[in-house]
Amino acid sequence: MKYCSQCGAVVALKTPPADNRPRYICDSCETIHYQNPKVVAGCLVEANDGRILLCRRAIEPRYGYWTLPAGFMELGETTIEAALRETLEEAEARVQLDGLFAVFNLPHVDQVYMMFRSRLLDGRFGAGDESLEASLFSQDAIPWQELAFSTIYHTLRLYYEDQAHGRYRVHTGDIIKLDEGRYELRSGPAV
Amino acid sequence: MKYCSQCGAVVALKTPPADNRPRYICDSCETIHYQNPKVVAGCLVEANDGRILLCRRAIEPRYGYWTLPAGFMELGETTIEAALRETLEEAEARVQLDGLFAVFNLPHVDQVYMMFRSRLLDGRFGAGDESLEASLFSQDAIPWQELAFSTIYHTLRLYYEDQAHGRYRVHTGDIIKLDEGRYELRSGPAV
Ligand SMILES: [Zn+2]
Ligand SMILES: [Zn+2]
Repeated sequence: MKYCSQCGAVVALKTPPADNRPRYICDSCETIHYQNPKVVAGCLVEANDGRILLCRRAIEPRYGYWTLPAGFMELGETTIEAALRETLEEAEARVQLDGLFAVFNLPHVDQVYMMFRSRLLDGRFGAGDESLEASLFSQDAIPWQELAFSTIYHTLRLYYEDQAHGRYRVHTGDIIKLDEGRYELRSGPAV
Repeated sequence: MKYCSQCGAVVALKTPPADNRPRYICDSCETIHYQNPKVVAGCLVEANDGRILLCRRAIEPRYGYWTLPAGFMELGETTIEAALRETLEEAEARVQLDGLFAVFNLPHVDQVYMMFRSRLLDGRFGAGDESLEASLFSQDAIPWQELAFSTIYHTLRLYYEDQAHGRYRVHTGDIIKLDEGRYELRSGPAV
C-alpha cells in the first residue's frame, strides 16, 4: 500500500498512538488503513453412495490439480453462504449442509480456511468456469498425489479418519509453511 | 474506496471479465482491489472456581459495557494467536485454550466471530488499556443487561446451556440485524 484509498495522498507506515503495531496511515485525511486475514470457505460434498466431489482447477495457482470447492468469502455473506456459493460456482452442485468440519489457519498467506461437511442434494454436478472437470471419488480412488493444496489433503484425510471412528468432529489447526512446497499441519484442539 | 492504494489513480467500480460482482478496479495499474470480511477472535475464560472473566469497555463502541476479550485478527496470526493476544491485551490474562466454541457470522458488519473456550492459567488478570475494569462473574451475577454485543450474549448463553447438558459443542450461527439495536441469532448446525 502506497496511497490512501480515500483521498489519494501518500500513506506512511507508523504505529498509531493507542496501537502496538505499524499501520498504513494517511496524514492528509487521518484514515488508518488496517489489513487483516481473509476467510476461505468451502464444502466437502458427499454423494448418496459416499463418494466425494472433487474439481480439477482451470485456474492458477495449481492449474490441473484437484480441489474441494472453496473460495474467498465476499462482503455481505456468511461463511455458509460463501461455501454454498463456491460449491455452486465451481462444481455446479447444490448441497445440504451438515456442519462445520475444519478450521485451518494459514498464517503465511493470511488466510483462514473454513470447510463444511455437506451432502449432494439432487445428484447433479458439473465443471464451473474455474474447473476443468468435476467428478466423484471413492476413498481408494482419491488422487492424493494430485491434490491442489495441503488444506484439501488434510480435510479429506481427517474426514476419512473421523468416518473410520464413526464420529465427525470439528478440527482446528495451523498449516505452517516449512519451505517452498512443503507444509505441515500443527493440529489444534478437535471438538 | 476512491483511489488505487498501489498507484494513486482514481478507481472505478466494475465487474472484471471472469468475475460476477463489481470490484474497485484501477485502469492505470490494473490492480483489482478485493474487499472481504474480517475475523474477530476472542476467549471465554473460565477461572478455577468456574467464574467467567469479563472486561468493561474503555473504548467505543459500547463504552462502559461488559464484553469477553476479543478483537480483529492481525496479519501473520492464527485465530488462536489472535484470541490469546486479545485476552492478554484487554484482560491481562494468560489462558490455557480448550477449543473452538462459537463461530458467528455478522453479515451486516462483514465480520466473523470465532470464540474459544479457555481456562485462566495463574489466576491473575487486570484491566488492559482498552478496559475500564476486568472481573470474574458467577452465572447468576453475569450482567446480562449490560453486555456490549449480541455475540457476547449468545456466547455466554450457549456456554451455560452446554454446561447444563454436560457437553460443550461448537456452535455456528448468523447474527442478523433486525433494526437499530435489535439482533437475532439464526443458529446453524452445532457439532
Ligand atoms: Zn487519505
Ligand atoms: Zn493503480
